[in-house]
Amino acid sequence: VTEDEIVAGIEALLSRGHRRESRSRVLLGIGDDAAVWQPSRSHRSVISTDMLVEGVHFTRAAMSLEDAGWRAMVANLSDLAAMGARPVLATVALGVAHKNAAGDTLELYRGVAQAADRYGIAVAGGDLTRSEALTISITVVGEVRPSNVKTRSGGNPGDVLAVTGELGAARAGLEGAPDALEAFRRPRARLAEGRFLAASGNVTAMMDSSDGLSTDVSRLCAASGCGARVENVPVAPAALSFARGRGEDPECFALAGGEDFELLAAIRRRAFAYLAGRFAKRFGRPLLRIGALEKEEGVRRGGQPLERSGWEHFGEKGTRLGG
Amino acid sequence: VTEDEIVAGIEALLSRGHRRESRSRVLLGIGDDAAVWQPSRSHRSVISTDMLVEGVHFTRAAMSLEDAGWRAMVANLSDLAAMGARPVLATVALGVAHKNAAGDTLELYRGVAQAADRYGIAVAGGDLTRSEALTISITVVGEVRPSNVKTRSGGNPGDVLAVTGELGAARAGLEGAPDALEAFRRPRARLAEGRFLAASGNVTAMMDSSDGLSTDVSRLCAASGCGARVENVPVAPAALSFARGRGEDPECFALAGGEDFELLAAIRRRAFAYLAGRFAKRFGRPLLRIGALEKEEGVRRGGQPLERSGWEHFGEKGTRLGG
Repeated sequence: VTEDEIVAGIEALLSRGHRRESRSRVLLGIGDDAAVWQPSRSHRSVISTDMLVEGVHFTRAAMSLEDAGWRAMVANLSDLAAMGARPVLATVALGVAHKNAAGDTLELYRGVAQAADRYGIAVAGGDLTRSEALTISITVVGEVRPSNVKTRSGGNPGDVLAVTGELGAARAGLEGAPDALEAFRRPRARLAEGRFLAASGNVTAMMDSSDGLSTDVSRLCAASGCGARVENVPVAPAALSFARGRGEDPECFALAGGEDFELLAAIRRRAFAYLAGRFAKRFGRPLLRIGALEKEEGVRRGGQPLERSGWEHFGEKGTRLGG
Repeated sequence: VTEDEIVAGIEALLSRGHRRESRSRVLLGIGDDAAVWQPSRSHRSVISTDMLVEGVHFTRAAMSLEDAGWRAMVANLSDLAAMGARPVLATVALGVAHKNAAGDTLELYRGVAQAADRYGIAVAGGDLTRSEALTISITVVGEVRPSNVKTRSGGNPGDVLAVTGELGAARAGLEGAPDALEAFRRPRARLAEGRFLAASGNVTAMMDSSDGLSTDVSRLCAASGCGARVENVPVAPAALSFARGRGEDPECFALAGGEDFELLAAIRRRAFAYLAGRFAKRFGRPLLRIGALEKEEGVRRGGQPLERSGWEHFGEKGTRLGG
């Protein structure tokens, strides 16, 4: 049984039911960075959830529990960023072992609270329970103007593909690159960048780049029903020097690393230069062009198919169902 | 370090931050059945989350994974019921062991889908990951008219205390009572009853009874700043005969059992008879009077303090932070 078959099985089970009323309020369900519903005609709410398990997603050898709490929040906030949403509130369900339950809980919540404060989201409730492996499941809710909701599926052939920052540092940090440790332990969520891009009618599709660029581009293409060529892979300097020092291909860190939490956007070709100029002025960093969407399915680099890879294997990290 | 100290530590960490804007949208945070926020001036959204861990909250010896999926949904939906909310959508984060991942995932989702269908809620997304102990963390969102939001804190001395059904069957089922197994494995969420009671201005406080009546009444009293006398403990017939057969006190099953998911409401004294009559007509079952709120703090039964007990101990089941 493959991962895709499990997800298809879940979707089949869930599509049978649901009264019409609830379904009609839910505008976007499984399959995007977050789910979208309509609390009233003029408002859109967005929700996303992620579960992190010690030993699967993080180890105490690689980061403190405070870092793990920060990362868990940022991974969720990044999904709101990808929808162009403003954070409203988060709930935190936490399972901790009986041994040192208080210390572990408070250390983890310290990181959660720091991220909540940094990105202006209220932690409005949660659940605290016993679990052998430390487990943290966060759900975030955000809001977005109906006209600004961005999904993965709106891209068109000819659109420029761009990312909000260089990639690969998180993976380099995980593997021990000293000057990439901060990127790995304390990633940022591109919330302001997400809202900026979402406000532009020339941004046709958006998602967060959390599983490695090759996988992420391939997912945006699949959702948009097109393909892409990748011309430029912006590798973070810390990953670049680390990879060279080990005699490895630096681009692999960006293409297959993941967890960088930059945004990946498709932008109408004629609007790209103007939007990138405004982006650079606003954020003091360039909006990085990496390629373009194409009619032909599949993702290519230098005319060759780009292998879809990343940390996406079930059993290694997990499968997002959207939402 | 006690459980209360952990929760106080979390609240201290979280109260430091949060930008004003987000905080002002969150009308009710940690401490009630669910958190409430304001997506627009005329709407209220409600969110609640629960984590269930195999071996802590359920065992495969006692129930199938399909039952566990149903129960996990109902435990969350019951929190929406307690706020008088209508379900909108749920997200499901699931951690399963590598061995039989597909089978376990689909069996659990079957129960989730059945509950979603029964109570008219859409499952809009989720996360699927690896975890040694099967772990399910569900978050539900509901909606309620601003004027109908009920909390635990609105009760006043003199109010009648009532529950929407007899208690103790879930605990009897857990302990093996054959005719209580269904109540244990397939509890109902009192959503229609919750909306009915929430629509009445004479219902001053409401919560779900999930930790045993003695604990639940004591919590409502603490939130409302008053005490209560319990005059009548309605024990479910299946729990009654099971307890008698074992020579145990049947009331203990209702007072300390928990997980019955009935609603506990405080109702203005002069309005109780009329409201109970309408309730019985609407639902074909009585609204059961169990006692009254009193000025003096503490919960009494027959003039004696009623011990606060239930499945509430950290290390046994978990601690709700609200939301």
